[in-house]
Amino acid sequence: MNTYFLEFRIKHEYANEKKTELANVVKTAIQAVFPECTLAYSSTENDVIMLFIDSSGTKLLTQLCKNSVLAINIDHHVVESAAFTAKVEELNKHIQESPCYVNLNAVVENVLPPIKRGRDLCVYDNISSGMLIERDYEEKVFDNVSPYQHVKIMRSTQYGGILFLDGDLNLAESDLEYTKAITGYDNEDYHDKTVLILGGGDGGILHHLRDRGPKMITMIDIDQMVIDAAKIHLRGICFDALDSMAGPNYKVIVDDCVVHLEKYVSEGKKFDFIINDLTAIPVSTTPVGDHWDFMRKILKLSMTVLADNGKYYTQGNSQLQPNALAMYEQQLRKLGCPVKFEKKIVCVPSYLENWIFYKIWKDL
Amino acid sequence: MNTYFLEFRIKHEYANEKKTELANVVKTAIQAVFPECTLAYSSTENDVIMLFIDSSGTKLLTQLCKNSVLAINIDHHVVESAAFTAKVEELNKHIQESPCYVNLNAVVENVLPPIKRGRDLCVYDNISSGMLIERDYEEKVFDNVSPYQHVKIMRSTQYGGILFLDGDLNLAESDLEYTKAITGYDNEDYHDKTVLILGGGDGGILHHLRDRGPKMITMIDIDQMVIDAAKIHLRGICFDALDSMAGPNYKVIVDDCVVHLEKYVSEGKKFDFIINDLTAIPVSTTPVGDHWDFMRKILKLSMTVLADNGKYYTQGNSQLQPNALAMYEQQLRKLGCPVKFEKKIVCVPSYLENWIFYKIWKDL
Repeated sequence: MNTYFLEFRIKHEYANEKKTELANVVKTAIQAVFPECTLAYSSTENDVIMLFIDSSGTKLLTQLCKNSVLAINIDHHVVESAAFTAKVEELNKHIQESPCYVNLNAVVENVLPPIKRGRDLCVYDNISSGMLIERDYEEKVFDNVSPYQHVKIMRSTQYGGILFLDGDLNLAESDLEYTKAITGYDNEDYHDKTVLILGGGDGGILHHLRDRGPKMITMIDIDQMVIDAAKIHLRGICFDALDSMAGPNYKVIVDDCVVHLEKYVSEGKKFDFIINDLTAIPVSTTPVGDHWDFMRKILKLSMTVLADNGKYYTQGNSQLQPNALAMYEQQLRKLGCPVKFEKKIVCVPSYLENWIFYKIWKDL
Repeated sequence: MNTYFLEFRIKHEYANEKKTELANVVKTAIQAVFPECTLAYSSTENDVIMLFIDSSGTKLLTQLCKNSVLAINIDHHVVESAAFTAKVEELNKHIQESPCYVNLNAVVENVLPPIKRGRDLCVYDNISSGMLIERDYEEKVFDNVSPYQHVKIMRSTQYGGILFLDGDLNLAESDLEYTKAITGYDNEDYHDKTVLILGGGDGGILHHLRDRGPKMITMIDIDQMVIDAAKIHLRGICFDALDSMAGPNYKVIVDDCVVHLEKYVSEGKKFDFIINDLTAIPVSTTPVGDHWDFMRKILKLSMTVLADNGKYYTQGNSQLQPNALAMYEQQLRKLGCPVKFEKKIVCVPSYLENWIFYKIWKDL
């Protein structure tokens, strides 16, 4: 099923005292373009509500909104029909050419793509601030629930495998830019350094850093399911980095990273680099709640095990979430140890919105 | 007005012999969550069509689609109401918890953002293959019709000013990646070279190349309106490159580039670089029609005025238009002179889809 949504700015008099004329114009246009539809319900006094139905299931619902806008919803039950789209465009043109219509723009706007519904694969996703986007998914390749989260991998024509954790897009095979941003854009020297990766179960950071000469990379991710799924379905991210859980200069620990961070604190162990790949900054009105508490705990423990001249890298959130970013920066100013930070706006291909990354270091 | 679109996979028997029970379940759920709505129309025998309306203009239309999917459209006439979204989520939960519902996925999908309608600013755009995306527009800063095209500039929170020509996104202030791709990614030496820019009215290519030591850049764009609007609203693209129509090593000609190309052919004039920034490859089922004829004409003339060791750069189209790209490559093979080409997939931030760029040179 496809749902088309038309809208028309209507002249003030037709939206008020000449409503009956408006209803007639719209009815005539609909019946001209969709002669098989019959008027099933009509209440044109207030909102110019008319429901047209035909035997194949097509439905047209008209309604007058505030600001003199006439909206028409058109539901069509046959998937992918160019002929039907042409009819919708014809109806659009009919009403735009009618005496009721006001064209506020210099040029008439076209009919937007319909919302595709009732499919086996939902192609829609929402990004920051409730924005809707359609994705080029080809298939769902993995969908399972671990003890920690919902793990889903979609295959996209442009972006390859895309990992979602609890519905949030994590990383796609196209997104080397993310890995470069969260490891310092090749401006850092990892040679002979110790690196701690918090999270990173897709293997992208481990793969990117293990050939850059580090003394030892310790990666701690809680979810074996993510690692196992990435190994099979996200080779473009992890390559063969997760095929073995240890190598000459790296080891992968499947566990809660807090336990290990606390152990490192008690042992006095230090790392030259900490890459926090756990989660984005929470989006909320105030910096309270479990997510913020977890984030503060990780930050505090990390700063304790970070070498004095070490670097801490992490993702922030969307450029469209300035409040969440500002709250995060407040937390940075309230840490036990004074820190400095830099942030960068990065275009990660599959995200379809700009993402902020942080580099944090101790201000000694 | 916001339009929410819900959908539910229904158990086979409820979509067939137990339709009346399904209608009752849905009706009860709607009336529980939206008690102010009354049933205005109902025809539950075939499609389980029910139209609920309340006095504030809210409308709920239910319908049963093929594949046992129940769809509900909800139109809400008060802009931005978190309380209403919560009610929609509650209805979603009610029906998902009813005995009619089949959860095919491991985890229940959330309610998608509504379609925002009747606003002064349409925030939707369609990209390749009829995909719908929502944009972060703040305002329309320019909207006018020149003798050649509809020129519109929108302001986006993330991408700055975005230029649209005849409804097609051309370039945003965030899109240095486009300019780098169409000029050879700083791998070309422009020192002491002659450069011909076809189109390029936004000034991005001119700005990028004029400080790279070329002997002379000739830019030919047909539309003074684009140049004038870019100068004011797209400073992040053109900077001060268009403030004067000529400089020590560049000149801007406002005219039809075909006339000048033909003149260059007759004079035997040659260029070291030709950057074709005119239009994307047309999307059509066969490579015929005015757009293709224009493209072939430009290509042929350009190859004639391109120096033997010269380079020709141009944009292609979306990665999601492989047929259009394949047809373009067929044209390249049929040119009078044999050519070689390379293509690159590029992520241009504001495009929200990957874009293909071509580098073409003579195979002597």
